[in-house]
Amino acid sequence: MQDPTFSFLSDYGLADEFVGVCKGVVLSFAPDVRVLDITHEIPAHDVRAGALTLVRAVQYLPPGVVLAVVDPGVGTDRRLVAAQTADHVLLGPDNGLLAPAVGMVGGATTVVSLTNTDFHLPAPGVTFAGRDVLAPAAGHLASGVALEDLGDVVDPAGLVPGLVSLPQSEADGISGEVWWIDRFGNCQLNIDPDELRSRGGRPGGSVEIRIAGTPRMARWVATYADARPSELVLVVDSYGLLSLAFDRRSAAEELGLRAGSGIGLSGPSSGLQPVATP
Amino acid sequence: MQDPTFSFLSDYGLADEFVGVCKGVVLSFAPDVRVLDITHEIPAHDVRAGALTLVRAVQYLPPGVVLAVVDPGVGTDRRLVAAQTADHVLLGPDNGLLAPAVGMVGGATTVVSLTNTDFHLPAPGVTFAGRDVLAPAAGHLASGVALEDLGDVVDPAGLVPGLVSLPQSEADGISGEVWWIDRFGNCQLNIDPDELRSRGGRPGGSVEIRIAGTPRMARWVATYADARPSELVLVVDSYGLLSLAFDRRSAAEELGLRAGSGIGLSGPSSGLQPVATP
Amino acid sequence: MQDPTFSFLSDYGLADEFVGVCKGVVLSFAPDVRVLDITHEIPAHDVRAGALTLVRAVQYLPPGVVLAVVDPGVGTDRRLVAAQTADHVLLGPDNGLLAPAVGMVGGATTVVSLTNTDFHLPAPGVTFAGRDVLAPAAGHLASGVALEDLGDVVDPAGLVPGLVSLPQSEADGISGEVWWIDRFGNCQLNIDPDELRSRGGRPGGSVEIRIAGTPRMARWVATYADARPSELVLVVDSYGLLSLAFDRRSAAEELGLRAGSGIGLSGPSSGLQPVATP
Repeated sequence: MQDPTFSFLSDYGLADEFVGVCKGVVLSFAPDVRVLDITHEIPAHDVRAGALTLVRAVQYLPPGVVLAVVDPGVGTDRRLVAAQTADHVLLGPDNGLLAPAVGMVGGATTVVSLTNTDFHLPAPGVTFAGRDVLAPAAGHLASGVALEDLGDVVDPAGLVPGLVSLPQSEADGISGEVWWIDRFGNCQLNIDPDELRSRGGRPGGSVEIRIAGTPRMARWVATYADARPSELVLVVDSYGLLSLAFDRRSAAEELGLRAGSGIGLSGPSSGLQPVATP
Repeated sequence: MQDPTFSFLSDYGLADEFVGVCKGVVLSFAPDVRVLDITHEIPAHDVRAGALTLVRAVQYLPPGVVLAVVDPGVGTDRRLVAAQTADHVLLGPDNGLLAPAVGMVGGATTVVSLTNTDFHLPAPGVTFAGRDVLAPAAGHLASGVALEDLGDVVDPAGLVPGLVSLPQSEADGISGEVWWIDRFGNCQLNIDPDELRSRGGRPGGSVEIRIAGTPRMARWVATYADARPSELVLVVDSYGLLSLAFDRRSAAEELGLRAGSGIGLSGPSSGLQPVATP
Repeated sequence: MQDPTFSFLSDYGLADEFVGVCKGVVLSFAPDVRVLDITHEIPAHDVRAGALTLVRAVQYLPPGVVLAVVDPGVGTDRRLVAAQTADHVLLGPDNGLLAPAVGMVGGATTVVSLTNTDFHLPAPGVTFAGRDVLAPAAGHLASGVALEDLGDVVDPAGLVPGLVSLPQSEADGISGEVWWIDRFGNCQLNIDPDELRSRGGRPGGSVEIRIAGTPRMARWVATYADARPSELVLVVDSYGLLSLAFDRRSAAEELGLRAGSGIGLSGPSSGLQPVATP
């Protein structure tokens, strides 16, 4: 791996020294690595949010080592693994955090459980595996140590799968959920625009949305600024999924949605008129 | 451009993967670039705050490529541009975000509209121009691609100007506004100390401040710690502008000020005594 | 110093351009330096929190220059210093921020007061010493300028000591305090597990905790996930100190603790039963 990039995602936040200390460890073993922060503001212990963020980001990460840490089971017997894919080695706890991203980039050719303590840091406790096990492994990999030296080769098919919900097709429409609320309050759904097309939905047309059983209308437009003031719209977002949005306002706040909220979508509506938020 | 720095400002926040993904794209085209974050916590869609931050920062940025993204019109027909100045190429939406900084460093010699889709990333939607148009352009520029290859050369005088308010001289004083509330609650005004001097203000002396019509006194001191407990002071801040402050307390909170709040300043007062905040 | 790392801790926050501008200044003098952020979210003006964070982090920082800025006395006559230790030069205001970390890594061989204005940036005011004095000094050091060129050599023993509280041994137990509330709400105490052992405490056993005079029980376990639902536990944390914790819940919130809160610990209890939080 020539001049690899060290990409890093976690739920450590930026207020403590956790992220800086892990990078310090990586740089102490691999002084020439480039460091790329994906985000460290995954909600604490939220493996699902971390997995979804990693899936969205992984295709844009330069070749190299990718460390992901959302690890509510730190110090228990859950495995810490490193998975070799075509362009990256992904490292993290084997708790569903890595598997969706590994799948997204074509699967792993080799997976190693990081059991070789020669490559761990000595530590007074077991509560900071990011610093003591994962960061040293990332640094050693980036500096040329062979993946197989870091521990036991395990079955790539045995990675714990991510708990990622898929939409359901129902008689009266598609039943899905909110996967992600972004900075701007846009609500990414787990629904592909093709599914909406198959129900008769068309760009420019209206779609019936059901939130907590209450129907309302949304117009399918190309971008946020196409929405009229207070108009709810559907946009194909930058990852190719349908997203609920307002122009320069938070759809999550306006609609009371959170990651995981259920959403129903029907095709073109019959009679309902667009309703503006007061 | 030898060993350029990639400086990056946005309203993307740090909770999502937006910033990391843009950097991944830049590094994939320009692996040797240094990355420097200016800030990503510009309030969502606040072009004016972004423009003011960029003006303050630009003189301290190493030579290279400067990407700024605050883009409420993403996906519409607003232009995305790259402006060559003496030491930098500034890229971003042409919505008033770039023009003040371009002016601060002496103006642009060449401006290009980023219309050449050969240098864009393929994308399922139009809502993430930072990743799909601007970051690739920044990466290509940093790796040696000529500015003119990225699109149509346009008139440098045609950049959309920033909406930056200037103070007004009035019979009873200077009428200005708060440009910036910093981390510590200090309130930078759009008023130069020379303007206050021309009204008879002197370091060490008192000045009458009017906030929402209510007068109060402030003493002009050299630094925050010169303020007595609960004393409102004026300081020439690190950018050479007058700033309202308390010692280790937030002037914005104490005074109820926000970016854009109006402020009146008179010269030395006649009879008003300093008033301590209770 | 070959290929040094520039590590950076401050209370500047990430919303303003302060951090980016300081890095820009460092890179302008030392283009090949690696940049490592420790954290910039030290609470504003909280020298004690900054000092404790730096003590925890310093042993994990690669060799190089370490800049720390928490400087409520900016612009006054407090000194700005650079302290040479075995692997690092630590720079910052001499207000108790640096001394504990300098001690942690074995003490300083040379300390310089940064009085040589040839190495300062010209500036309109005195309120941003990070940008105008400390960052240029860090950049010059990283690029090979000799420490002694930056100002007057002063007595290493004269650094202002940090205000770091130590636990007290008392008749009925150990009296200590909370040093740090981390991202996850875990409460690090200033109490070494050996002190608890000397009172008869044992891993797996119960310990009586007193918070604001009220006793409750905690079990000493190896890691957070060993706690039963709603069970308060003591963990030897990643720095070797005792920490109060719940599994996936904030002990600080549950117990009403803040940095600096007093805590009493006794050895094995006599009769008190573990109490679950409702």
